[in-house]
Amino acid sequence: MNAFERLESDVRGYCRTYPVTFDTAKNALQWDEDGKRYIDFFAGAGVLNFGHNDEGMKKALVDYISRNGVTHSLDMATTAKRTFLERFDEIILQPRNLQYKVQFTGPTGTNCVEAGLKLARKVTGRRNVVAFTGGFHGMTLGALACTANKLFRGAAGVPLNDVTRVPFDGYMGANADSLDALRRELDDPSSGIEPPAAFIVETIQAEGGVNVASQEWLLALQELARAHGSLLIVDDIQVGCGRTGKYFSFEGTGLDPDIVCMAKGIGGFGTPMAIVLIKPEHDKWSPGEHTGTFRGQNFSFVAGTEALNYFRDDTLLSAVERKGTVIAQSLQKMAEASGGKIQVRGHGMIYGLDVGDGKTAAAIVGAAFKAGLIIASCGSGGRVLKVIPPLTIEDDVLVEGLEILGKAVAGAA
Amino acid sequence: MNAFERLESDVRGYCRTYPVTFDTAKNALQWDEDGKRYIDFFAGAGVLNFGHNDEGMKKALVDYISRNGVTHSLDMATTAKRTFLERFDEIILQPRNLQYKVQFTGPTGTNCVEAGLKLARKVTGRRNVVAFTGGFHGMTLGALACTANKLFRGAAGVPLNDVTRVPFDGYMGANADSLDALRRELDDPSSGIEPPAAFIVETIQAEGGVNVASQEWLLALQELARAHGSLLIVDDIQVGCGRTGKYFSFEGTGLDPDIVCMAKGIGGFGTPMAIVLIKPEHDKWSPGEHTGTFRGQNFSFVAGTEALNYFRDDTLLSAVERKGTVIAQSLQKMAEASGGKIQVRGHGMIYGLDVGDGKTAAAIVGAAFKAGLIIASCGSGGRVLKVIPPLTIEDDVLVEGLEILGKAVAGAA
Amino acid sequence: MNAFERLESDVRGYCRTYPVTFDTAKNALQWDEDGKRYIDFFAGAGVLNFGHNDEGMKKALVDYISRNGVTHSLDMATTAKRTFLERFDEIILQPRNLQYKVQFTGPTGTNCVEAGLKLARKVTGRRNVVAFTGGFHGMTLGALACTANKLFRGAAGVPLNDVTRVPFDGYMGANADSLDALRRELDDPSSGIEPPAAFIVETIQAEGGVNVASQEWLLALQELARAHGSLLIVDDIQVGCGRTGKYFSFEGTGLDPDIVCMAKGIGGFGTPMAIVLIKPEHDKWSPGEHTGTFRGQNFSFVAGTEALNYFRDDTLLSAVERKGTVIAQSLQKMAEASGGKIQVRGHGMIYGLDVGDGKTAAAIVGAAFKAGLIIASCGSGGRVLKVIPPLTIEDDVLVEGLEILGKAVAGAA
Amino acid sequence: MNAFERLESDVRGYCRTYPVTFDTAKNALQWDEDGKRYIDFFAGAGVLNFGHNDEGMKKALVDYISRNGVTHSLDMATTAKRTFLERFDEIILQPRNLQYKVQFTGPTGTNCVEAGLKLARKVTGRRNVVAFTGGFHGMTLGALACTANKLFRGAAGVPLNDVTRVPFDGYMGANADSLDALRRELDDPSSGIEPPAAFIVETIQAEGGVNVASQEWLLALQELARAHGSLLIVDDIQVGCGRTGKYFSFEGTGLDPDIVCMAKGIGGFGTPMAIVLIKPEHDKWSPGEHTGTFRGQNFSFVAGTEALNYFRDDTLLSAVERKGTVIAQSLQKMAEASGGKIQVRGHGMIYGLDVGDGKTAAAIVGAAFKAGLIIASCGSGGRVLKVIPPLTIEDDVLVEGLEILGKAVAGAA
Repeated sequence: MNAFERLESDVRGYCRTYPVTFDTAKNALQWDEDGKRYIDFFAGAGVLNFGHNDEGMKKALVDYISRNGVTHSLDMATTAKRTFLERFDEIILQPRNLQYKVQFTGPTGTNCVEAGLKLARKVTGRRNVVAFTGGFHGMTLGALACTANKLFRGAAGVPLNDVTRVPFDGYMGANADSLDALRRELDDPSSGIEPPAAFIVETIQAEGGVNVASQEWLLALQELARAHGSLLIVDDIQVGCGRTGKYFSFEGTGLDPDIVCMAKGIGGFGTPMAIVLIKPEHDKWSPGEHTGTFRGQNFSFVAGTEALNYFRDDTLLSAVERKGTVIAQSLQKMAEASGGKIQVRGHGMIYGLDVGDGKTAAAIVGAAFKAGLIIASCGSGGRVLKVIPPLTIEDDVLVEGLEILGKAVAGAA
Repeated sequence: MNAFERLESDVRGYCRTYPVTFDTAKNALQWDEDGKRYIDFFAGAGVLNFGHNDEGMKKALVDYISRNGVTHSLDMATTAKRTFLERFDEIILQPRNLQYKVQFTGPTGTNCVEAGLKLARKVTGRRNVVAFTGGFHGMTLGALACTANKLFRGAAGVPLNDVTRVPFDGYMGANADSLDALRRELDDPSSGIEPPAAFIVETIQAEGGVNVASQEWLLALQELARAHGSLLIVDDIQVGCGRTGKYFSFEGTGLDPDIVCMAKGIGGFGTPMAIVLIKPEHDKWSPGEHTGTFRGQNFSFVAGTEALNYFRDDTLLSAVERKGTVIAQSLQKMAEASGGKIQVRGHGMIYGLDVGDGKTAAAIVGAAFKAGLIIASCGSGGRVLKVIPPLTIEDDVLVEGLEILGKAVAGAA
Repeated sequence: MNAFERLESDVRGYCRTYPVTFDTAKNALQWDEDGKRYIDFFAGAGVLNFGHNDEGMKKALVDYISRNGVTHSLDMATTAKRTFLERFDEIILQPRNLQYKVQFTGPTGTNCVEAGLKLARKVTGRRNVVAFTGGFHGMTLGALACTANKLFRGAAGVPLNDVTRVPFDGYMGANADSLDALRRELDDPSSGIEPPAAFIVETIQAEGGVNVASQEWLLALQELARAHGSLLIVDDIQVGCGRTGKYFSFEGTGLDPDIVCMAKGIGGFGTPMAIVLIKPEHDKWSPGEHTGTFRGQNFSFVAGTEALNYFRDDTLLSAVERKGTVIAQSLQKMAEASGGKIQVRGHGMIYGLDVGDGKTAAAIVGAAFKAGLIIASCGSGGRVLKVIPPLTIEDDVLVEGLEILGKAVAGAA
Repeated sequence: MNAFERLESDVRGYCRTYPVTFDTAKNALQWDEDGKRYIDFFAGAGVLNFGHNDEGMKKALVDYISRNGVTHSLDMATTAKRTFLERFDEIILQPRNLQYKVQFTGPTGTNCVEAGLKLARKVTGRRNVVAFTGGFHGMTLGALACTANKLFRGAAGVPLNDVTRVPFDGYMGANADSLDALRRELDDPSSGIEPPAAFIVETIQAEGGVNVASQEWLLALQELARAHGSLLIVDDIQVGCGRTGKYFSFEGTGLDPDIVCMAKGIGGFGTPMAIVLIKPEHDKWSPGEHTGTFRGQNFSFVAGTEALNYFRDDTLLSAVERKGTVIAQSLQKMAEASGGKIQVRGHGMIYGLDVGDGKTAAAIVGAAFKAGLIIASCGSGGRVLKVIPPLTIEDDVLVEGLEILGKAVAGAA
């Protein structure tokens, strides 16, 4: 690790948690340079929904490179981009009766969140945005103002304004309506709360600790937004692209977001892409008003097109359901064995194991890694182990990983 | 173009200026889907310093993909990343007697600017940042506050604070000292200007209109920063990586930046990467304090490593000097023919042709495109044609492009 | 009224509600220039606790003027100021075992609130301040950020930052704990709420609609502030100086504020004064760090000293209790007659009659004025009639005023 | 001084510089409680233009009090207020062909500045305000953002935003155009400077060090404001009401401000008043949109009306000219004796003696006080002695004061 310590900034983090140098990877497995094998329950922070080095994407990329396809194109038109757009419309939007215009931004989640916030503010002529306890939306100042985590906020160095913070579903206890205060405040001209341009919400807070919003709460949120002329932004960066068992995490809930932010899995291969989906009536951008040099990533269009093919039929999503059940049952056993100390949250193929404190979680992460499993913690103080393997993980590898995890959890008890 | 109009947000810009669909590209040439050939004087907004589809990089990428190299790794250690870091140190830093720690951020320029600003604010405990008229640093709120352009700023939707704007070199006329007011204000406790955390400057403002800062001015700026305990941040995103005839644009000026922001060309192939170079004494980050999902782009490490090889000897940089002279002489002739209406600025292989107003510039861009040349405008109101071909452009292609440009300029007169 | 319409800005308000020109006044009566008599249930927005033109104060003022006492003294020492300070200490602070340093600010409520906020931020090194729904703290930008009312906030013209808004006691319904969300958020490093420099609270929100905080809630608030190292600021501007039947509104509740803001009644005669009471351990001001030209108002020191004499024994405060009961019983009858439409809130000699909507309240104010009673409305949308006569009002005048009010209320039903 | 140290906050300042307790005063003389006599060259920071305890005002006040005139009236109409308004119109506005609506604010300078800023932002729909190096406009957050002084700004505890700082006339040297940079920036859409709602300027910066703007500069400023649709706000709080030899400091310069802020001297007797003068076309306030409890100060209306009588003819203003010359000549001698170390600035009856550093100035203030003269310092670091006696000072007292000052200056050399 010498080279990294010597040459890389102290800001580096995961290489401390997983102190080896990785070299190759295939689907849900990674190997370090000494040939040691690791099962990947982290999927690059939710990017690698389709696993490492998917063969179809590999082939498409090599073909594209070999034929001198345009790699970098800003927002010029390319054939690869057109194919991606058409496939996205055909496979994702049309079957779901969704009409969205697609904005490509700089290829990181925070860039598309910034674009979505700007647009909502432009459309409504308002500044205030409602964001939630535990929310994670990115590191650049506009997105960071919506992010809740203290470590990240503390690094801003300037005030993070123009956001009203509201408790997420469940934050006030199981039976409390966490939107109650806001609802009263928005109805009251003497509350001191300004009408929001937008509500930005994750249907499942991934970094925030795998907090799952109920359908009822999401619909109440949408109703509140609509009642006050605010746009509803769903940040589907981590839990979109099939992670929850649907393509969009909000499918089937009745949510009809005005703006959807997507990144991570959308580029398919770990190749970066970020998009903002915009209802046509809100596409009020002037040409070039929000730009970004790397918004035309053709490798990502090529691999991302391959990824879309996974959603042409039910094969992948029904596998997500099946494997999700395997995960849930396994984690539930760990929870039961803990005598109430441990809690399980999640659905689809994102699950959180809340072990109560960050120290315990860190010990489990460390023990699991030694035993060949890559898993990360999240949530307030890092107390939640997050299980987000590739959606394409083989069943036996999944089981093997869960067994390693189970032992690590038991060992920490 | 139907698919783009139907499916893509109205924010799209360059596809309106260049209304064709590009398909393939090689070094300084691009072809649209109808097989029409274009000479590229834009290089993807300064990204493609090494041209489209460099053979060495292609081979390295295909090899990496074929052997299942890790593609996406956050800030975990990978062999590809280590190689990049070691080569960067060996080829770039050590020969120049520079000691910088490298921070990888989300792979866009604006992300690394945000990181640099955060760090400078953390190190100094101050909020205020000095940025310059005509400066361009990105679209996310922290970087956007430093960006000068009205269209971009107007889209923020919220106030852009914590920045003091100062005239760039030459802004006040040829003989005026544009730092004079700031110098007096920083010496005066009753001026109302707060001591800056940092000065963020481009040595050549690319988007701002190819405004070239003099060495004298840059050194005066550095002296002012040092005198007041402020960090000096050089944004070398567009003019670094060899564009000016040196690897860093500030080489040979006597500038010794505390922080350098790099993106665009650093990834080599149009594959995205962004880094912050930090003097070791300012590397005050806590682990994980600034993150970004796509900060571990191994395709970019692989291609970027190849790109570094271009700087093992003088071949490329001396070619830059030679071709820069060709450009300068050609543009100078256009300027002379204009009877004083047109001005030429620049050095290395970045040149601006200031044609006086945006309308004329747009007409030239359009005529050139019809004649097979991709060129873009920049500067206040878009009045400056920016000539930034790949550094690797063949001499005959360069001359051919300049001839097309000359005719378009003459035609607009 | 011609002169006012012609020469005064359209911002004028109360002269529209009470469209006569007042000339003289005595205790709880005012006369317009045509000699018409009005009973004053408004007391100059809570300033005239000791009535108009108190004879003792008149004599003291005339004596002071006649002997060429210094009128205006900034924060130089004067004999009149010393007397005020000593009496305040002797009559108010010492008997209540309170130790506060006194800061004199520009003589308006908003000025002392700004000073209190600055000091709390300086002492704690934090920016965020918790303020409440319905809170009113002034019109200058720092205080206005804490004020809840939409009309006032909307006039700021700039963002009002650095304040977290929290529901006041009762806002969430009778049985809900309005501090619950904040308590959870402050305990949670991933909530996105920054630790507050201060909590600023009115124990009874006067402008906000005569909302009375319970003792239990106030103590919970204090506990929360203490637990997180935040200062507790009580804004006693409208309900201090005896209005509630105690000198300070928080007496007897167990509240022990770090900072108390006082204005309105403290100057005694309608002569302006504003002070900040500061616990000695928080008196971290540097000399001259917060100033204000009119902070040395000797007329106010002279009249204010006379006002303090009202608190040498129980006479006034027991009269407040007695007359408060008269008011409460009278209002309660109006409420009962309304069949549940009207609600009564308050204690001491501040009562609110919540008639449900602003239009009804305005009609009652107008009818009462025609019948010779000055009363004003407050609360969200102006739906609450506020009964705050001089504490010194004669019993028969009080009863007469209540009868006029009762008829106006009945007439509006 | 024991009572003050024991009971008053450490924020107190002037009582440290003048460590006695004042008791009585008459015109330009003050006496401490031991009967020691002081000549007043400070006039309560420019409030007491008409001296201490003017006999006409005393009589008017005592009469008003004795006949139970309304003292405190918010913005209700009173006979005393009407008289003030009518006299102000008759004596001040009409003879100067000025049409302004009058807004009464909370009676301190900072309150009227806040109102003026709000209104300019409302009228223009813009946020940004241009303020100047050395400017002083008040202590509340909106006004403080315009104030330049570091000590005051540092106490804000929150960022002071929405202001662009520009060098005052002379700040860049005698021959430089301090508006040049701003002029270029406002003409340039890529400068990064937002069009201002207003320019707020003192024609003579009093607290800033008696910096006198030239007529040429003021007109250039006005032209710049007009060219960009910005309002021109003149802060005449300290140098209005006759101080410069005209009623308004800007009379005769060709300036035609959209908004004028007045306080200090306008109340006549040291009784507080603050007003905003608004061109009728900019009086866009909604009723009650900006309020303030003590905006109806009838003592100030009564005394202020008497003060207006001083401007019925030329007596006072021609005396100001004559006495100003006496002051100037005297100070000029001190400057000459200093061999160039000391500089004199000012006109009318406001003069500054710039002694080069704050330590020397403080020594002179101390020596003068011991010798019976009250004088204060101002400017960056407190290096300027400010000579602002009552306009009504007797000639022999003026000369006596100047002699004391001369000796103190000589002693410090």
